[in-house]
Amino acid sequence: MPDSADEKLRITYVLTCGEGEDPQAKARDIALEQTVELPPGSVPAEVAGRIVGDVEKLEDLGGSRWKAVLSYDVSIVGDDIPQLLNLLFGNISLKSGILATEIGWPRALLAHFPGPRFGIEGLRAACGGVQGRPLLCAAVKPVGLSAKQLADICYQFAMGGVDIIKDDHSLANQKSAPFRDRVERCQEAVAKANALTRGHSLYVPNLMGSASGIGKRLEFVRAEDCKGILLSPFLVGLDTVRWIAETSELFILAHPSLAGAFFHPSHGIAPEVLLGEIFRVIGSDGVIYPNVGGRFAFSEAACLAINSSLRNPLGRLRPAFPVPGGGVDAAQVPHWIDRYGIDTIFLVGSSLYTQSDLTEASRRLLEAVRRHGDGGSITGR
Amino acid sequence: MPDSADEKLRITYVLTCGEGEDPQAKARDIALEQTVELPPGSVPAEVAGRIVGDVEKLEDLGGSRWKAVLSYDVSIVGDDIPQLLNLLFGNISLKSGILATEIGWPRALLAHFPGPRFGIEGLRAACGGVQGRPLLCAAVKPVGLSAKQLADICYQFAMGGVDIIKDDHSLANQKSAPFRDRVERCQEAVAKANALTRGHSLYVPNLMGSASGIGKRLEFVRAEDCKGILLSPFLVGLDTVRWIAETSELFILAHPSLAGAFFHPSHGIAPEVLLGEIFRVIGSDGVIYPNVGGRFAFSEAACLAINSSLRNPLGRLRPAFPVPGGGVDAAQVPHWIDRYGIDTIFLVGSSLYTQSDLTEASRRLLEAVRRHGDGGSITGR
Repeated sequence: MPDSADEKLRITYVLTCGEGEDPQAKARDIALEQTVELPPGSVPAEVAGRIVGDVEKLEDLGGSRWKAVLSYDVSIVGDDIPQLLNLLFGNISLKSGILATEIGWPRALLAHFPGPRFGIEGLRAACGGVQGRPLLCAAVKPVGLSAKQLADICYQFAMGGVDIIKDDHSLANQKSAPFRDRVERCQEAVAKANALTRGHSLYVPNLMGSASGIGKRLEFVRAEDCKGILLSPFLVGLDTVRWIAETSELFILAHPSLAGAFFHPSHGIAPEVLLGEIFRVIGSDGVIYPNVGGRFAFSEAACLAINSSLRNPLGRLRPAFPVPGGGVDAAQVPHWIDRYGIDTIFLVGSSLYTQSDLTEASRRLLEAVRRHGDGGSITGR
Repeated sequence: MPDSADEKLRITYVLTCGEGEDPQAKARDIALEQTVELPPGSVPAEVAGRIVGDVEKLEDLGGSRWKAVLSYDVSIVGDDIPQLLNLLFGNISLKSGILATEIGWPRALLAHFPGPRFGIEGLRAACGGVQGRPLLCAAVKPVGLSAKQLADICYQFAMGGVDIIKDDHSLANQKSAPFRDRVERCQEAVAKANALTRGHSLYVPNLMGSASGIGKRLEFVRAEDCKGILLSPFLVGLDTVRWIAETSELFILAHPSLAGAFFHPSHGIAPEVLLGEIFRVIGSDGVIYPNVGGRFAFSEAACLAINSSLRNPLGRLRPAFPVPGGGVDAAQVPHWIDRYGIDTIFLVGSSLYTQSDLTEASRRLLEAVRRHGDGGSITGR
C-alpha cells in the first residue's frame, strides 16, 4: 500500500471466521488486543479514543472471509521495529484466522527507518557496476566442509564470474569451519580469482551467531574488506538487522529462515508484507525467497507480489533486490528473467553443484544471462 | 525429552503427508534441507555420513500423520542459539505439514546454554522469600497513559501486595510514557508502597526497543535497582535474551508475542518445545503463556505440557516458572492452583482492572491465594 501523509498506520487483515464468529467483533477484538489489552469498559476514556485501533472498513470476501482495515495512531509504535511487529501481529499471533495482508505506512513512521543503504543501484555499483542484466548469486556449501574446502568452492564460483558468492545460511561457527577462518580464506580465494579474471565477484559471509559477538564479527568482516553480509532476520532479531543496516556500511542479504511460520494461508503475515515490506524497511538490500517451482511451496503470484513490494516506491526508501532461490534451475534462469525483470538477483545453488565443474557451470549460466540481455526488462513490476 | 549423554541432537517431528506424499521421503528431505541443502548425489561422501541427519524412526500415527525421529551430530549446531533454531525449523518453516514436537538434548549442547540464572527458587528469593504459595503478577497498562498514571497503577498493585508488577508488553518508548521516565516513576511508586506495607513487590519493566539501545536500557534499569525485566524473545531476538540472562544479573520474564505463528497444529513448533524448552534454555526465569479458557486458544493439555517442560529436569538448567495469563480470572485462581501447583506465577490482568479499587482487588486475590495455601502442591507436574 502506498505511504501516506496522515498520521494513521493502516493494517489490512483477512479474517477467517469460525462457526458463529462475528467478523465485526473479531476486528474490534484485534483493535483492543493489539493496543490496550483490556475489555472496552476498563479503558480510560482519554485513552479509548486515541489509542484503541479503529475498524475503518469491513468487507465480505465470501466463504467466511472478511477484509478488515484497522487504523492506529502512529504514536503507538513510538520509534522502534519491535513495537511495530508487536502491533502488527504480536498477541494476535496466538489467536487464529488472522492474516495481515497490507500495511499503509504513514510517512512519519517510515522516517524512523532508513531502509536499504545500498538498494538496487548501490548493490549494482558494489558488484563492479553491472547494468543491463540480473545479478547472479551462488551459495557456498555444505556445512561440514573445512574452511579450505569452502574457500576452494568460492574460488571456482568466482572464476566463473558469479557476482555474489554467499555463505550457506547454515554456516555458523561450527568447528569444521570456524567463522574467522572461513571468512578469511573465502575472501582471499575470491580476491585471488578476481585478480586473475579482472572480475568483481563478492564473497558475502553469513554473520549468524551469538548476539553478544555480532559487533566483533562485523568488525572482522569489515577488516577483511567484505562488502556485504548475509543475515537471517528471525534468527538474529529484526531490529539487529536495522541497526547493522544503519551503521555498518555493509550491504545486507536477508534470508527467510524461520519466517515460513508466518505464511500459513489463513493466519500470519503475507509473504509480500513480511519479506517485501518489513524486510526492506529494516534495511535489507536483497531479500532471498523460495521461488515457485523449487523445493518450497510459493506460488508465482506470491513471488511477483514480493518483487513488487521490494521495488515499488515506499517513502524515501531505496528499492531492494528480490533474490529468488530455493531450487532455481540454472537452465530456467532466462525464463525467470522474462517473468521477473533484470532488477533481480538469481540465487542458483543445487543445479550448479550437480554439474561436475563449478567454474564451467557458472560461466555457462553467466553467458546465458548476458545473451538474454535485458530483453526481459520489466523493472518496477 | 530428557537430556542424553551421547552426542546426537534428536528432533521429533509429526509429519502430515499430503496426497501421494511419502513419509520416508519427507523425513529424508528434512534431514538434507536442514543440513547440507543439496540433493543426495551432490553431497561430498565425507560430509554425507557425518552431517546429514539420520531418520532414526518413522511411526505411522494414522490419518496421514507420521512421527519421525531425526538425529544430528551436535557439531552442526556449533555453540549458538540462532543455528539451533535454524536447524530445528529454519528452512522447513517454508514447507508444510512439519511440526517439531520433541527435542532430545545432548549434554554437550546444553552445556553452552546456562539457562535461567534465577529459576524458581531464585525468583522466590527475589520476591522476599515467598514460599508455600504461587506468586502473583499483574500488568501495568494500557499504553497511552502517562508515566505518572502508570506509576499510580503500580502503586495500587503494590499496596495490594502483588508480587510482580510488570509493564504491559506493548509499553515501549512511546511519547505518552517514554521508557526512562516510566521506569523511574514506576520503580519509585513500588518502593514507596513497599516502605508502607513492609512488602517486597517488584516492578518489572519491559525492555523492548531498539537493538542498539538495549545495553543502555539495561544499565538504566540496573541503576534504578530493578531486579527483573520483561522481554519478548521473538521481538528482541532469542539470543539477545540468552546474552542478557548470562550477563545482566536481572531475572527475565519472557512474553510470547509473535510466537503464536509457530503454533499451527500441523506445522510449526509445539508450544511445550518453544515456550517450555527453548525459552527456558535461552534463560527465561518465567515464561508467560495464554492460559486455557482465556482470550486465546490453548488447550489445558498444552498448558500442562508447557508447565512440565519448564519445571522438569533438563541437564544442569534450573527450572523456570510457568506464568499462565491472557485472561486468567481472579476468581478462578484457586482452581488453577489445584491444576498447576504452587510453583506457578499467575498473571492476572483484566479481571483486576474491571474492579473499581485495584488495591482492594489485589488484596482479596492475594488472601484467596494464601488461604488456598499449598493444598494444591503438585510441583514438578
